[in-house]
This record gives sequence, structure tokens and C-alpha cells, in this order.
Amino acid sequence: MFQDFKQAGDRPVVIQVKEYMKRLIIKGALQADQKLPSTRELSVLLKVSRNTVIAAYEGLEDDGFTYAIPGKGSYVAMVGHPDAEQGGADSSAAWHLDWKAKMNEYAQSAVELDLMKQGIRAGKGTISFTSIAPDERLFDLGDVRRAFMDRMAIEGQVLLNYGYAKGYKPLIDYLMRYMENKGVDPSGKEMLITSGFTEGFDLVLSALRPLTRRGSALCENPTHHTAIKNLKLHRFEITGIPMERDGINVEQLEAVLQKSNRFDLAYLTPSYHNPTGIVMSPAKRSAVIQLMRHYQIPVIEDGFNEELRYSGAHVSPLIATAGRGNGVIYIGSFSKVLFPGLRVGWVLGDRALIDHLESMKRARTIHTSTIDQSILYQYLINGNFDKYVKKARLEYKRKYELTKACCEAHLPEAQLSGDGGLHLFLTFPSVVDTQRLLEACTDQGVIFTPGDKFFVQEGEGTNTLRLGFSRVTDENIERGIQIISEQVRSVFQAGPLGMGEDEI
Amino acid sequence: MFQDFKQAGDRPVVIQVKEYMKRLIIKGALQADQKLPSTRELSVLLKVSRNTVIAAYEGLEDDGFTYAIPGKGSYVAMVGHPDAEQGGADSSAAWHLDWKAKMNEYAQSAVELDLMKQGIRAGKGTISFTSIAPDERLFDLGDVRRAFMDRMAIEGQVLLNYGYAKGYKPLIDYLMRYMENKGVDPSGKEMLITSGFTEGFDLVLSALRPLTRRGSALCENPTHHTAIKNLKLHRFEITGIPMERDGINVEQLEAVLQKSNRFDLAYLTPSYHNPTGIVMSPAKRSAVIQLMRHYQIPVIEDGFNEELRYSGAHVSPLIATAGRGNGVIYIGSFSKVLFPGLRVGWVLGDRALIDHLESMKRARTIHTSTIDQSILYQYLINGNFDKYVKKARLEYKRKYELTKACCEAHLPEAQLSGDGGLHLFLTFPSVVDTQRLLEACTDQGVIFTPGDKFFVQEGEGTNTLRLGFSRVTDENIERGIQIISEQVRSVFQAGPLGMGEDEI
Repeated sequence: MFQDFKQAGDRPVVIQVKEYMKRLIIKGALQADQKLPSTRELSVLLKVSRNTVIAAYEGLEDDGFTYAIPGKGSYVAMVGHPDAEQGGADSSAAWHLDWKAKMNEYAQSAVELDLMKQGIRAGKGTISFTSIAPDERLFDLGDVRRAFMDRMAIEGQVLLNYGYAKGYKPLIDYLMRYMENKGVDPSGKEMLITSGFTEGFDLVLSALRPLTRRGSALCENPTHHTAIKNLKLHRFEITGIPMERDGINVEQLEAVLQKSNRFDLAYLTPSYHNPTGIVMSPAKRSAVIQLMRHYQIPVIEDGFNEELRYSGAHVSPLIATAGRGNGVIYIGSFSKVLFPGLRVGWVLGDRALIDHLESMKRARTIHTSTIDQSILYQYLINGNFDKYVKKARLEYKRKYELTKACCEAHLPEAQLSGDGGLHLFLTFPSVVDTQRLLEACTDQGVIFTPGDKFFVQEGEGTNTLRLGFSRVTDENIERGIQIISEQVRSVFQAGPLGMGEDEI
Repeated sequence: MFQDFKQAGDRPVVIQVKEYMKRLIIKGALQADQKLPSTRELSVLLKVSRNTVIAAYEGLEDDGFTYAIPGKGSYVAMVGHPDAEQGGADSSAAWHLDWKAKMNEYAQSAVELDLMKQGIRAGKGTISFTSIAPDERLFDLGDVRRAFMDRMAIEGQVLLNYGYAKGYKPLIDYLMRYMENKGVDPSGKEMLITSGFTEGFDLVLSALRPLTRRGSALCENPTHHTAIKNLKLHRFEITGIPMERDGINVEQLEAVLQKSNRFDLAYLTPSYHNPTGIVMSPAKRSAVIQLMRHYQIPVIEDGFNEELRYSGAHVSPLIATAGRGNGVIYIGSFSKVLFPGLRVGWVLGDRALIDHLESMKRARTIHTSTIDQSILYQYLINGNFDKYVKKARLEYKRKYELTKACCEAHLPEAQLSGDGGLHLFLTFPSVVDTQRLLEACTDQGVIFTPGDKFFVQEGEGTNTLRLGFSRVTDENIERGIQIISEQVRSVFQAGPLGMGEDEI
């Protein structure tokens, strides 16, 4: 015994010795009421200082693994679990439940719809256009550190104890003002802080989903694949409305609404729509609000990337267009602009709705990390956000234009869309199957996101793809797009329809 | 115009000027294509430096609210939303949805079951025994700051970008070892990091709840009121098994199981059970595991307060007792011991189960705050945890003994239970209605948690209460318990049954 002790570099030795002894006791290698080696003996056996052993023995006693008899030494206080090691026939080791069989439909579809468990993993050196997460090299760590230290200095311990389900009050006040500056009329509305956009969206769907029948939802087509996933997960049937250069096709929206008015909600992303990057025109925003109001359909507005505008005038969100109307739920987040690692988002909507969401939030996660909320708050009031967004906008705009230029040069047959944000959306002639294209490109060390998963119906958008450029270097943007271009030609030139001059 | 600008101390003036101008544009007070005052004019009007105005104008242009004509000045780029202000008849302001009516049963019960929306609020100067949150004065802020800085220095920006749904790998590895040191056999098991115990519990219930019928759950009676809330929220019928001094009544448990074996799961808190503070004996732990295994009932083990042991030998958790068996799901958290503000907990269980929970977690919140996880991780490997727990244990043990002594002196008629943790549980003669007692005490500036809400059936435990002492000063513990004692006498002495000498 005591031969197999090995020191690891990462933790204090006292703790390592303590844990080592705990194992021996738990395994039953040291029996109950057995005397432990003297501290001097063990220090020799484990090749550690005697003080280390003394401290470790104290810890073992504190944790109830041993007891000391003054003048005699330390003794094992508990009976080990040989089970945990051998697991004999009559031991609980035999207990085996089939968990997969116990998972309900919701849990099962969560796995089936989990894109992360399907997507192609990027190997080393692969040029990956799949991410639309911000480029962390733009993060101003110093400002974040300062924000943390400033806030800790002001509030100290309070930040580490329980907060409120609704959110960190100073942040709520700040974000309410922030939304007012986008033109939102706050009367009758309240805000709930969530762990990012996703939690906000999941809470809203959980509250609005019909429990006795499948729900029905309207959305732009294509749209954010995570939104499609969560709508399906909550058993909504989805009706997609095609996109135009200036946003959702309002005539078709109206036609659909005239046909059936059994929609429980609409999910819309008016600014820098994901994946097309299109910004809905002010005229369409009013038209959409008028329609939704007429048919009394609650609107969930995704504030996605609103901050990453590269050109054109500011456009107020739908919730601002609705004025005092309470039909729009706005879900915001800085994740795509600022720090996704700080899981902070917000839901702005009618007071009665927020009251319900608050209780649901409390039952699910109690509250969002106070550290995250307070760092974000201090970062904002320190004026770092404006400074950062200015910098980020410049850099992303440059990359956006580079990506656009490369696509125009090397992929002339593809239709581009995207007025801002961290990605471009490409539509190829129908002959180009982007899943097949992806397979070919993967072999050449380039990956992207095939567009079909952004479409509501199976088999739609098989000729589209999304290029996320935020985390790709300039030279890789060029190389990657060239490689995609080569593959388009080698794989589809001889395709059934080929590509006529007209198309190229 | 420009008369109503007021500087606030809390943010950079540039931002305040920018926001002020945005409001005017959005309100339509400044019309599209209208020329803004020159920077010199505005600096005089708003009484701020000209450079401030110049910077603010740049910001307005960046955000698309204005455009500049070189040599001429800045002009308004967008049309405001007078709607948002007045809301005329034909505006969307008329749009009013009845959100309360749109909330489904789940959202409604979330509010109905939300204790925070019922509990008595403590006024200033009130002695409150309702909290069992840790005493933040024990928090070692310096160590937390260091943990943050250390981790930022090591990983930097990465901490601020997206993490993994499963959790922060170094923390998972650490906690797996931590659980092994409690005697857990890790084979076939995996871990998911959650935003505290509550998210873990909610995820597990969401995955196991039957969707076509009401579920049925077993638990100790009384038990953690939040657990009761979440079980009800997920439409479980709850069967409570009475407690004994050494834990759940195993005979009754067996009797119930023999009668009906249609239980979907059992929820158990073997260590420092909430609210009774009882620790289940090793013998009972084996017996419970044998029973659950025989009847094939999944066990959710709440690791609540396991670290706050004040006396007696270490007792391994149920998941350790189960050896290689996969029937126990362990949900852990340091919230009650360490920092509740850091929303970090963990679910340890069968690989197939964790795989499903991971996808559910991804669909709901993407992942737990990386900052929270990495601060906790660094704090742990810096060896601060052992140091802190040692300190906290001493302090809470002292308070625990003081509270116990005061209860024995002033409330001799009450039965005490609790071997550790941050609270004591009192059971009075049946004549004492603790809701009525609370009303009387509230008038005297003392509040506590009536015990009935910890019981499964309406009307049970009306003569019980929970005293949380972690955040009450020594003198207030004494004063508070004296006041409770006085009220017990003045309110119930002359009660229907009164209290015979024997009872006092």
C-alpha cells in the first residue's frame, strides 16, 4: 500500500494526499477503526513533507473519514464500499436501468434535433465557415477585467449570493433605457433577464405552446435553424413565408393569414435576418404589424445582430413600430456582437407575460448568473460597449466586403444576400446540391453550413449555403472560397443540367 | 427644444448626448432630413464640451440615425415614430392582447406555485429566519478575484466566447474526481454542468415525465419545497414517505412499493435533508438502494449541503452505495455552501441519460456561464474551497449550536431536528398553527418559514416551522427565538387544547 501515490502538478499536495487517503478508505483498503500510519511514517512513504501529512490528516478528520485518539493517532471512521470497486453478484452493481427507454418524446427529439450531434467536425487546419460567433481576438479583455473589478469593488459579496429571477436591477434599468433609445414605448411593458436569447425563446414557447394539440407558428423562410429546432421541440407546426430583398413577402403573409387564422404565434427576425442577412424595410415593418394586429397574432421578435449594421439608416425594431401595442415580445442579446460566453439576454414584453415568464424562470434556473449580469452592466456603463461595437463593426464590415468580393469573383453563379452581420447567404442554381458540395469541400479542407437546415420544409434550400466569416482570416476567406468554387465546377459542371452561360 | 437635457452621473456624457438626440429623432421632434444644430451651437445649448458633441454626432452617424454632408453638417437619416408617443387611433397602439388568457396551464401553475410571490416580505429591521442562503460575510472575495484573474490570464478571450453545453471541461474533470472521492464508481457515468441544482432537477424531470398521463413520484415527507413545486409543475402526483431520526421510514417505503409499483421516480435527499436536516444512516442507504433496484425505480439524489457536516463519520451518497449500478442520478451544487450567485451545479448519471440532458440543455440555454464555471474551477484548484469550507463549517456549527440552545431554552415544547446545514426544523404540539404564529411574530418583527409548504399533502405539518440561521446575527438569533416563544405562549396558551405541563 501507499506505493501508487503520484503527485500531480495542478493542485496543492495537501489536497492530493487527503484525496488519496480517502480513496483507500472508500475502497476498503483501509478498514474501519484501522490505525493510519503515523504522520512521520506516511510522509516517508509518500515522499511529502510531514506538515503536509499533518494538514491532510486534519482534513480527513474534518470530513469525517477518520477520528483521532489523542496520543495514539488517527483511525478510519467509516466502512468502505468494496462494491464500488468489484461489484459482486449480490451487490447493487447489478442494478441496470435502460435510460434510453425511459426518455420521453421531448428528450428524444431534443437529441434528434440536436444539430451539434450531426454537423461535420472541423479537423485541424480546416477552413471553417460554419461559425457565426464573434472573433474573440476583438474582445477587449482589459475592459472586461476592469468591469469585473469595478463591480466587485462596489458591491462585493452581494454579487456572489442569490439574485432575483427577474434579473440584476441595474442591468434591467440600463437595458430598458437602451430599448427606449431604439424607439420602444415602455408603458405597460417589463423586462426579464435570461441566460441568452435561447432561454428567452424557450421560455416564451413553453408558455405559449398549446398543451392539448400541436401549435402552429409563422416564420420567415428560411430562418434561424435553432428557432426551427425549438419550435419543433415544442411541437409547433411551422408555416414559412418566403423572403424578398427587403424582408418577408407581405402579400404571401396576408394570403396565408386569410386562408387560416389558427396561428398561435409568429417568429420574425426583421434585422440582419439569419441566415439571409436581410433587413426588413420600415414600410414592411408597419405592414407586418398591421397584419398581426388585425389577426391578433403574438409576435416574437428576434433582435439578432441589430447592432451590426454596416450601411443604411437605423431601423427601429417591430416592438417600437407597435408603439403602445403589447402584441410584440422582443428577445435581445449581445451574444453575436459582444461576448457569447456571458450568457445574458433579455425578454421585453407585456407586464402580464413577463410576470409568468419570471415564475417559470425561477422554477427552472432561479436566476441568471449575477457575475455575468454585473460584468455586462459595468462594461456598458463604463462606455466600453460603444467603443467596442465601433471597432467590431469596422473589422466585420471589412471582412464582409472581402467575403462578398471573393464570392462575386469566384462564385458568380451564386446569388448573394446579406446587408450586415457575420455571414453571407448564397443561393446557387438548383443543380448545385450543397450537401454534396460540402462533402467534396470537406475533403479539400473547407467546411460551411448547407442552407437546407434553415428551411422549414425538408428538401427546400438544397442549393443554398451560409458562409460565416467572423472567425476566418482574410487569406483563408480567399482560399476557402476559391476551393468552394473549384469544387462547384468539378462536381456540378457535368451535372444533369450543367450550368448554362446564362447562369454563370 | 434641447432645454430638457439633464446630465446623469452614471455614464459618459458622450453617450448621454447621443441617447438624448436619438430620442428626439425617434419621437419625430427632429424630422427626417432636418439639419441638426452645429456642434458649436449644441455644445452651448446642452452645456457640454464641443468635443463631446462631435463624438456624439459621430456615434449617431455610426448608428444610422444621421448622415453628414461634408462642409454642411449632420442631417436626420430616419423617420421617427410619433406612434410610440401619442398612439393615434389608426396606430398600432390600439393593439392589445390579453396575455394572461394566452398563458398555458404550465405557465399559470408556475405563477400559482411560485412561493416568492406569496411569502411575507421582510420589512426593515425584521429578524428573518426564512433564508438558508450562505452568509456572504464569510465569502473570501480576494480569493474569488484571484480565481477570476488567474483564469483570465490563462485562457483569456476564450472564456468570453461560446462554451459547450456539457460544461467547462476542466471543471467536469475536477468534479468527476471530487465525486470519486465520495466513493462514486464513474464507470458508465457522465456529468453535465447545469445552472445550479434547480436546472439539473428541472431537466431530469422534463426528460422523465410521462407526456400522456400524470407521473407519480416518491419522496421523503416533508421535503424541499422547491422540489415539490417542480414535481407538481411537471404534473407528478407525489407520494410522501415519513421521516425518522435516521432518515426515511424504510418499512413504509417498502409497504408503499408493495402496494403499487407504478412510480416513475423517487426524489431523495439523504444528507442534511431539507427541511429536517436529518442524515440518512448507511444501513438505510443500502436498504433504500436495494428496494429501488428491486422495483427498478430511478432515484434522483439531491446532494444538498453534503459539505456542511458538523459531526459523525462521513456517509457516502446513494450513487456511491449503488456501486456500478446506474439507477441513481446525483444532482450536486455548492450553492448552499459556497456562492449561490455562481449558478453552477452538476448532474452525474448514466451516460445515455446525460447524452439526452445535454441536448435538452443546449436547446434551452446553450450552456452555463463560462465565467461562473471557470471562476469556480480556478477557486477549487487554488485550494480555496477546503480552506473556505473549514471556516464556514466552524462558523455555521457555532450558529447551529446557539440556535439549538436557544430553542431548547425558550421553546421546550418544540421537537428539534437537524444534524447540520444552515437551519433547524421545529415540530410543535398540534395545537400550534405556525401560519397563525407567523402572523403574530411578523407584527413583532420576526419571520420564519412555516413548515406546511414542505409537506406533500395540504394541511400536513401545520405545527412545524423551519429556522434558517445562516444569515442572522447571534443576538438576533436569541432575540428572535425569544419573541417566537412569547408569541407561542400569548397566542396558543389559551388555545382550544392549551398546553399541559407535560407538553411544556
